[in-house]
Amino acid sequence: MKILVVNAGSSSLKYQLFDMDTGVVIAKGNCEKIGIDGSITHKRPGKEPYKADVALNNHDDAIALVLKLLTDPELGVLADISEIGAVGHRVAHGGERLRGSTLLDDAALAYLNSIVEINPLHGPPAIKGIEACRRKMPSVPQVGVFDTSFYSTVPEKAYIYPLPYELYEQYKIRRYGFHGTSHRYVSAAAAELAGRAYDDLKIIVCHIGNGSSITAIDHGRAVDTSMGFTPQEGLPMGTRSGTIDPTVVPYIMKKMNLTADEVEDLLNRKSGLLGVSGVSSDCRFVMEAEAKGDKRAALALDILVHYMKKIIGSYIAEMNGLDVLCFTAGIGENDADIRARVTKDMDYLGIAVDAARNEGLGRGNKGEISADGARVRTFVIPTDEEFMIAKDTYEIVTKS
Amino acid sequence: MKILVVNAGSSSLKYQLFDMDTGVVIAKGNCEKIGIDGSITHKRPGKEPYKADVALNNHDDAIALVLKLLTDPELGVLADISEIGAVGHRVAHGGERLRGSTLLDDAALAYLNSIVEINPLHGPPAIKGIEACRRKMPSVPQVGVFDTSFYSTVPEKAYIYPLPYELYEQYKIRRYGFHGTSHRYVSAAAAELAGRAYDDLKIIVCHIGNGSSITAIDHGRAVDTSMGFTPQEGLPMGTRSGTIDPTVVPYIMKKMNLTADEVEDLLNRKSGLLGVSGVSSDCRFVMEAEAKGDKRAALALDILVHYMKKIIGSYIAEMNGLDVLCFTAGIGENDADIRARVTKDMDYLGIAVDAARNEGLGRGNKGEISADGARVRTFVIPTDEEFMIAKDTYEIVTKS
Repeated sequence: MKILVVNAGSSSLKYQLFDMDTGVVIAKGNCEKIGIDGSITHKRPGKEPYKADVALNNHDDAIALVLKLLTDPELGVLADISEIGAVGHRVAHGGERLRGSTLLDDAALAYLNSIVEINPLHGPPAIKGIEACRRKMPSVPQVGVFDTSFYSTVPEKAYIYPLPYELYEQYKIRRYGFHGTSHRYVSAAAAELAGRAYDDLKIIVCHIGNGSSITAIDHGRAVDTSMGFTPQEGLPMGTRSGTIDPTVVPYIMKKMNLTADEVEDLLNRKSGLLGVSGVSSDCRFVMEAEAKGDKRAALALDILVHYMKKIIGSYIAEMNGLDVLCFTAGIGENDADIRARVTKDMDYLGIAVDAARNEGLGRGNKGEISADGARVRTFVIPTDEEFMIAKDTYEIVTKS
Repeated sequence: MKILVVNAGSSSLKYQLFDMDTGVVIAKGNCEKIGIDGSITHKRPGKEPYKADVALNNHDDAIALVLKLLTDPELGVLADISEIGAVGHRVAHGGERLRGSTLLDDAALAYLNSIVEINPLHGPPAIKGIEACRRKMPSVPQVGVFDTSFYSTVPEKAYIYPLPYELYEQYKIRRYGFHGTSHRYVSAAAAELAGRAYDDLKIIVCHIGNGSSITAIDHGRAVDTSMGFTPQEGLPMGTRSGTIDPTVVPYIMKKMNLTADEVEDLLNRKSGLLGVSGVSSDCRFVMEAEAKGDKRAALALDILVHYMKKIIGSYIAEMNGLDVLCFTAGIGENDADIRARVTKDMDYLGIAVDAARNEGLGRGNKGEISADGARVRTFVIPTDEEFMIAKDTYEIVTKS
């Protein structure tokens, strides 16, 4: 069976077509500037990418173009659209009700529409992508895979904020967590790499990229994660602040005469690595500046490492132990230096990394970097959210 | 020498008179409802407390009344005011410049006035108390002891927030930390109780009361603390939220149509134990409700314990170890049950408490509660900020 994985943003639509018999991606690409002008990049393994500017007025146009290319005599990989057994959609937010991947029937779509309020940025484009696929492929099952659903096992004490309880009841303000599909994939792969049963392990996954989160998985169940009500909480990121004193927010508003939207923008797009360093939101450029002696760049990285150490320590306390520590995503997979800094002087917690193994691990490679004899096994595992979405989708449509 | 310790609030003024030859408090009391109507409670060890309603228009009236009672033939303990060698003032905020206890000369007072902006609640009454003492005792040295100055050793990575760096430069938004005098007293007492050199230890102090903070002291230097720019950050408290997703703040404002001041009030006075439980800000009443089966009361306590465990774990990661864990302040000193919950299942981190020792330690007693063989020694130590203020004051005036 072929599974199409769709990740729809406000002006983009990414896709990957999986052959589930082999687990291989047979085509993938990205529609961009939807609703502005429109372009597509379409790739097949071993062949030249196809790029074209095509007017894309909306997500329906984008999906129509993707289906046209997938069945194109020259550029395509399918004889007919009917070969697509199901579509798996990446959806950031499943709210409190969608606690696992699920068939996107009318009820599920209605629920997604009802929670747009707590997911104003990512909800509407995901819904547009789903609706476009339903219109263009009315007989193909659509499945939703939610970034939040991995956290359905997080206990109340870790998801209720110490705020008036009515804010939870009335406005659904609670920790949801994000990147769940990545953390689920990586933690499962880590158990495999460790040669141990998934639900026999205490695992921490550090998903460190432009957006970053850390998740604790205790005996197969996510028990805490650093992103919260929004992806703003937890670690400093490219341009996001992460956790700060909440009273700083009204203080800034009063001092700088900002509205609620403006302060949100400051926290979300002008903070983090960019805000502290003044150099860039991209960790690589911040590291380059640090190497040239830029003190604020060095400070930005110190703060990131400091937050990472603290969150790892806090999750070890929560789980009373740790068996496996994993790094993934843009920075986590590719930046041996950040991994070295985070794991330095952590032997009291059982963490010790072998410098040669850490530095020797090539970009995009999976492997173990622990020092011999370390109590905790430390891995680097490239994430693959699309594969996880395809897998969930396949399981749902073949079971039902 | 006698040292008068003064702690001036907006409508109250607490005082303790220490005889530094013996270290004993020979009189203490509290002026209340200053600027409203006025009352005083005056106590001497072994004697009936004296209580009276007296018109107190301002802090000058309060100090005049205190000095009158201290030298009263019947109620007093001094023959003459000149026996007071110095006054030590508790001051919440010393900003970035007052990095240790100091003589309150004109320059220091001017600096305190200049930072009222970042300390609007506690700054003005402290200054009123200092000015009143200067007027009523012009020849007596006045010393300031700051809640923040213990944190002058905290490294940049732990005090700079991942916000635009200009917010630090322009508005001095950074972690300051509070309760420093308490953490300093308790950590020093802990080293003594452990029979070890202070600067040879990794110590965590949990000051848990109506306001709560946790501080990490690494080899004699505070390296991190949970309160931040304001006392709002960190642990959930009686009515304060502690740390939450910062984006919740603008979200609430928009949903509930609140101003910056109103959301600050919600975070500061309607959250924490009170907000979650709906029962009380007082931990004892929340525990009573929990014992009767109140689920939200149980949840409020679970959240408090959860945050405590996480912060302890994060500081162990930061220091790469822990030798001594201390509990102090209202809840920390007196609530064996909370101590038991926090230290439960923490043996991976070397923490283990003996149930009988923990429960057997009477209210207000100092002692060790670790289990035999625990890597980390766990203590309960009643705090004594006033003694610390008297000691600092004595040292400054006898040295200078």
